[in-house]
Amino acid sequence: MSEPFKIGVAGLGTVGAGLVALLQKNHDVIAARAGRPIEIIAVSARDKNKNRGVNLSAYAWADRPEGLLSHEIDCIVELVGGEKGAAFDLVSSALDQKKHVVTANKAMLAHHGMVLAEKAEGNGVALAYEAAVAGGIPIIKAIREGLAGNRISRLYGILNGTCNYILTEMRETGRAYDDVLAEAQRLGYAEADPSFDVDGIDAAHKLCLLTALAFGVQPDFDSLQAKGISTVTAVDISFASELGYKIKLLCMAEQSGDKVLQSVEPRLVRAEGPVGSVEGVLNAVYAQGDFVGPVVAEGPGAGAGPTASAVMADIIDLARGNIRPVFGVPARDLQKASPADIAEKTSRFYLRLNVLDVPGVIADVSAVLRDEKISIETLTQRGRAPGQAVDVVMVTHEVNCAAMERALEHLNALEVMQDKP
Amino acid sequence: MSEPFKIGVAGLGTVGAGLVALLQKNHDVIAARAGRPIEIIAVSARDKNKNRGVNLSAYAWADRPEGLLSHEIDCIVELVGGEKGAAFDLVSSALDQKKHVVTANKAMLAHHGMVLAEKAEGNGVALAYEAAVAGGIPIIKAIREGLAGNRISRLYGILNGTCNYILTEMRETGRAYDDVLAEAQRLGYAEADPSFDVDGIDAAHKLCLLTALAFGVQPDFDSLQAKGISTVTAVDISFASELGYKIKLLCMAEQSGDKVLQSVEPRLVRAEGPVGSVEGVLNAVYAQGDFVGPVVAEGPGAGAGPTASAVMADIIDLARGNIRPVFGVPARDLQKASPADIAEKTSRFYLRLNVLDVPGVIADVSAVLRDEKISIETLTQRGRAPGQAVDVVMVTHEVNCAAMERALEHLNALEVMQDKP
Repeated sequence: MSEPFKIGVAGLGTVGAGLVALLQKNHDVIAARAGRPIEIIAVSARDKNKNRGVNLSAYAWADRPEGLLSHEIDCIVELVGGEKGAAFDLVSSALDQKKHVVTANKAMLAHHGMVLAEKAEGNGVALAYEAAVAGGIPIIKAIREGLAGNRISRLYGILNGTCNYILTEMRETGRAYDDVLAEAQRLGYAEADPSFDVDGIDAAHKLCLLTALAFGVQPDFDSLQAKGISTVTAVDISFASELGYKIKLLCMAEQSGDKVLQSVEPRLVRAEGPVGSVEGVLNAVYAQGDFVGPVVAEGPGAGAGPTASAVMADIIDLARGNIRPVFGVPARDLQKASPADIAEKTSRFYLRLNVLDVPGVIADVSAVLRDEKISIETLTQRGRAPGQAVDVVMVTHEVNCAAMERALEHLNALEVMQDKP
Repeated sequence: MSEPFKIGVAGLGTVGAGLVALLQKNHDVIAARAGRPIEIIAVSARDKNKNRGVNLSAYAWADRPEGLLSHEIDCIVELVGGEKGAAFDLVSSALDQKKHVVTANKAMLAHHGMVLAEKAEGNGVALAYEAAVAGGIPIIKAIREGLAGNRISRLYGILNGTCNYILTEMRETGRAYDDVLAEAQRLGYAEADPSFDVDGIDAAHKLCLLTALAFGVQPDFDSLQAKGISTVTAVDISFASELGYKIKLLCMAEQSGDKVLQSVEPRLVRAEGPVGSVEGVLNAVYAQGDFVGPVVAEGPGAGAGPTASAVMADIIDLARGNIRPVFGVPARDLQKASPADIAEKTSRFYLRLNVLDVPGVIADVSAVLRDEKISIETLTQRGRAPGQAVDVVMVTHEVNCAAMERALEHLNALEVMQDKP
């Protein structure tokens, strides 16, 4: 077991450079825990001359990711990113050549997870992705191995640190969404093109991987309609605070029978509750098992150190020979779950209507809601501005989701936005 | 890989019966995740005729635990309990016969972990104990594997559900310790002889296993001086509440250089903080890694279902061939850490003095503290009863622990009790 485990690293951005730094600093404890040294043989990135703050002189250089495969390695670490393109091509080729793959690429796995899982399992190698979900929290391992004795009925969590940071800042400072987003971009917490994060796409990628693992179903990104946080206003947040809630981008998945419900959307959560206390760039995942009950894990959801920590956990696993099916059970045995019809669910809703402050408006709104049997728990009008637009905020009792969708269509003559509680 | 993984179960108490129930109910998903069926071949307990709520008719019966070893099995599951005696003998024999062992027995491992680890590793088999620490939370796996790329500098947590339940009840109902303990015993949350739990011994057993794993040191129970919760009064809890704190039995371990500091004692924690929100029979563990940062896991710390879930996770690991050194690195490489001198540490202290309400008492107390350079942040006298005993409560600034120990000796002419903040 003292033969080194040899890796090639593709991509030397924040995470790639972090991984190199981690391995250089903790080489001794890692070798002790892995039972053998872990050695970087070759690295690949676009620009060989860029200063990345780590010494790369001991490693061979490949100008293109596939170049790594010409070296004698056991495992490719793919940190290039992107749903298709270079990342997918590299991973595909590596698996074909019976090399293990460790990746942090949730977009690729959410879209092409089945194809790649079948390829990995067919070739008897691993495709490991602890770093793809919830950063440094070892949640893939916890669900796949730590809770493996349980049927998991439900999981939910906060899976996007960028959104959580923006919502936390908006609440704490009272500033507007655009303002906080711009700051997050300056600080490096949000990308120049923030749409993957703020539209909930990134969270949805992660959720569908957790769903596959927890319920033994094929990852199903296409039927997951994510809602993002760009419609959340400072007014919503301040109303939520008054009612004892915070607004969080909540990811949720439930299994009932052969149906799976997945959702990513801003929700009101109790300020004092377990999700409400997860602030800033933290992530958290809650899983409910039939024997274990509820288990929670919380930690840093992104960043060089936490993500490198997760990548390294996978590498050590593979160096030890702990090779599991990609989604916990063999890909050929994964069920194709039908998406649950969200219209059959009930929920309490938070509604903010931006309406003209003219007599009869509330009566009109109430009539629409009454026709759909939607009953209101609280209704508040913020300020008065006769003839101008004001916000009317209401929280409903438990309501059928389909009825709410229909009511929203009717209300759409007015300017309407909605979050679920 | 379709050959069944065969186990023998010793001990059919709450956890043993829970394990049988779990395997019977979730046999299909467990086989899918383990890559092979898990089969109970034989069971052993004291009374064959006792009704345990599970059907045992398919399994061979052994009157004595060692009888299990006469069957063709891969793994012994030891749920007998106890530091020495039948449990130790069974585990020892099983390892000698090159059988894997899964156990929930923290007392045995805290005292004899080194001997057993060397035996297991010498024979090339596993000694797995996920269920020994923090019930259903897969914290052993998280630290040993999920955070394996990190040097862990510090961990702390709530590891005894019985104590946490008692302290939570005392705070919520204002009742006295003895009263709540008696209720916990009626409800089955505390043993008839509660001393292992309430004196902090059980928590200390668990802490020293986590310490060994996190820092790569030999488990060292003997140098760990646990303090329990039996000296905590309703008055302490109510004072703590007024100051914005809760009292928790906190386990903590820190490594600095080749020294390891372990402590188990009641402490004041911020009511709103992450530990403060862990209530009732829940457990939680916080670990600080050099790359991952802080990671937290929380869940049910005891009970049939959660403990069986943890035992089953170990069994599935072994069925898959994921065999790790008992304490993360080979036992022969574990350092013998010297216990850090707690006297060199500083801390803020909470003191409650039960003193006679006579003129000059506060002056006497203050003089003792002044002589040890202990400065007081708040001092409150509860009630007035001239000539009789009253409680005086104070919270100190950051103070050297040795100075505090000396001060307490001096104060001991009065009736004195102390918890650390």
